[in-house]
Amino acid sequence: MPEIRKDPVFGRWVIIASERGLRPNEFRQSPGPGGYICPFCPGNEDLTPPTIYSLPGKASGWRLRVVRNKFPALVADAAAGSRRDGIYDSMDGMGFHEVVIETPEHGRVLEELPAEEIADVARAWMLRLREIKKDPRIKYVMIFKNHGRNAGASLQHPHSQIIAMPMAPLRVQQEIDGAADYHDERGTCVFCDVAREEAASGRRVVGENADFLAVTPYASRFSFETWILPKAHRSHFEDAPEGEAATLAAMLKSTLGKLSASLGDLSYNLILHTMPVQDPAAEHYHWHIEIMPKLSHVAGFEWGTGFYINTVSPEEAADVLNSGKKFRA
Amino acid sequence: MPEIRKDPVFGRWVIIASERGLRPNEFRQSPGPGGYICPFCPGNEDLTPPTIYSLPGKASGWRLRVVRNKFPALVADAAAGSRRDGIYDSMDGMGFHEVVIETPEHGRVLEELPAEEIADVARAWMLRLREIKKDPRIKYVMIFKNHGRNAGASLQHPHSQIIAMPMAPLRVQQEIDGAADYHDERGTCVFCDVAREEAASGRRVVGENADFLAVTPYASRFSFETWILPKAHRSHFEDAPEGEAATLAAMLKSTLGKLSASLGDLSYNLILHTMPVQDPAAEHYHWHIEIMPKLSHVAGFEWGTGFYINTVSPEEAADVLNSGKKFRA
Repeated sequence: MPEIRKDPVFGRWVIIASERGLRPNEFRQSPGPGGYICPFCPGNEDLTPPTIYSLPGKASGWRLRVVRNKFPALVADAAAGSRRDGIYDSMDGMGFHEVVIETPEHGRVLEELPAEEIADVARAWMLRLREIKKDPRIKYVMIFKNHGRNAGASLQHPHSQIIAMPMAPLRVQQEIDGAADYHDERGTCVFCDVAREEAASGRRVVGENADFLAVTPYASRFSFETWILPKAHRSHFEDAPEGEAATLAAMLKSTLGKLSASLGDLSYNLILHTMPVQDPAAEHYHWHIEIMPKLSHVAGFEWGTGFYINTVSPEEAADVLNSGKKFRA
Repeated sequence: MPEIRKDPVFGRWVIIASERGLRPNEFRQSPGPGGYICPFCPGNEDLTPPTIYSLPGKASGWRLRVVRNKFPALVADAAAGSRRDGIYDSMDGMGFHEVVIETPEHGRVLEELPAEEIADVARAWMLRLREIKKDPRIKYVMIFKNHGRNAGASLQHPHSQIIAMPMAPLRVQQEIDGAADYHDERGTCVFCDVAREEAASGRRVVGENADFLAVTPYASRFSFETWILPKAHRSHFEDAPEGEAATLAAMLKSTLGKLSASLGDLSYNLILHTMPVQDPAAEHYHWHIEIMPKLSHVAGFEWGTGFYINTVSPEEAADVLNSGKKFRA
């Protein structure tokens, strides 16, 4: 049973999930008979827990599948509510942990898929979020994608993850609080203001379509950090209109395509930032996606310190991405 | 000129230091003629900026040197004070960035040095901190060590770094605020309480001497995360009595030795957490050291999310470290 523990200084919750340490790692096993067999490939459906949601496909019977994670960070059949452990607080690791298998094709990357198939992925995120939030124990749903071994992915087959948890992570709450402070002071949404300022200057824009803007943010923590901002103000991703799945997919395809063209063998963490699911629509918060490329062997100093030194300015990153050229090649 | 930029949502400061991207990386260059020459080795003193502080040694003339970083994240000859850039705030990258070359011996690691030489390193940290804080523009001094390529080190030769900056990093301020809240509620220092609780249970203790306790913290964010806590309450590291340099050195030697024995080719980030230098001694804050081993290809998901999944419980980590055995070997 995973356990959620609270740090007594920060009030930060950490998931301790020892069983997850036993999951296979494709990058450390040799493929083929007796070696690595991909649980996400067609024909190996019996290696994953049962399908929660799927879309039909020609070749393999499906073109997208959502399954429960076989090595979950959180589990549904756990008690809610915290308990005391000396001076510490902990609770059972209650929640859901699902995997979105984005394509039957093992060797592709998300941005290579046709835009309609990427839109299927975005729609699957929305649908699962809407379904999961019906459980009142769930306070936050984190949707993310680790791509490439430098970003901590253990499997190569294109997939994203959904973790539903009984509290909002501290950093999420701090982001919402910061946006609320900004709104209190100026009466506007900070993300709307950033989108407007960035579109006007154009200095850090790496993509734009009817609904979305892609920018390298002004105070980028990481080299080539890129945000995808919806132009329409909306706090909850799951409340976005159906039509935005297609325009989001187009923006993901072009943005990841640019990052891949400039950075070569791209590893990244992609995180969808959205409002805690049980909270009402808010004027001060604005859902968005943050993509953090992980350049190999770039200093890991920020790791756990919250102190960031970035050696590529967001303006240089935008120039490189828009040129289509390799970075420092 | 490095620039410090403020994130408009979090109020988080980020250093943008493009020149630092040009620094050499020992792990990517071949050694020898025409290739990599270590700037920290004896005989190559002309490859670093002039010595700020040194201790005499037999073989090479010195046994420890402190020099200005040749590729600084912050520089002294910059203006203080922030300026407006549209909706954003920024300031010149004012500060100091120094390197402590811990030994003339290129191929050693810190924990292999005799305890007296590690004590020299701890004393150099203290002395530089006391000297640097005389500049009233400096609000925080971060002392840290990146060891190994997985931890973002660019040079192998044993060294630590000192970055002095014109503000406290957001995470530092949050840690101090969290500790202040705890103190307001219970009237005690949270770090004193943690040290007492851990010493009493022994469940997560991996080392103890007259002045220090080493523990795998209850809500460890990272596998094998280890903290070194001083037993005496003191908010400022630079106010520690001289005698603690020796006992801290002994604790560093045994703790890093245990981590190295269990984790093999050890990469880690070590960060000294201390009070902002211009603040008075505080009852609610307690300086300490956090060591975050970076296991190769362990999920980098926490990277920038503040959401942590740890697959090794601190109790298992303590057991492994105290057994002297290799982890999952």
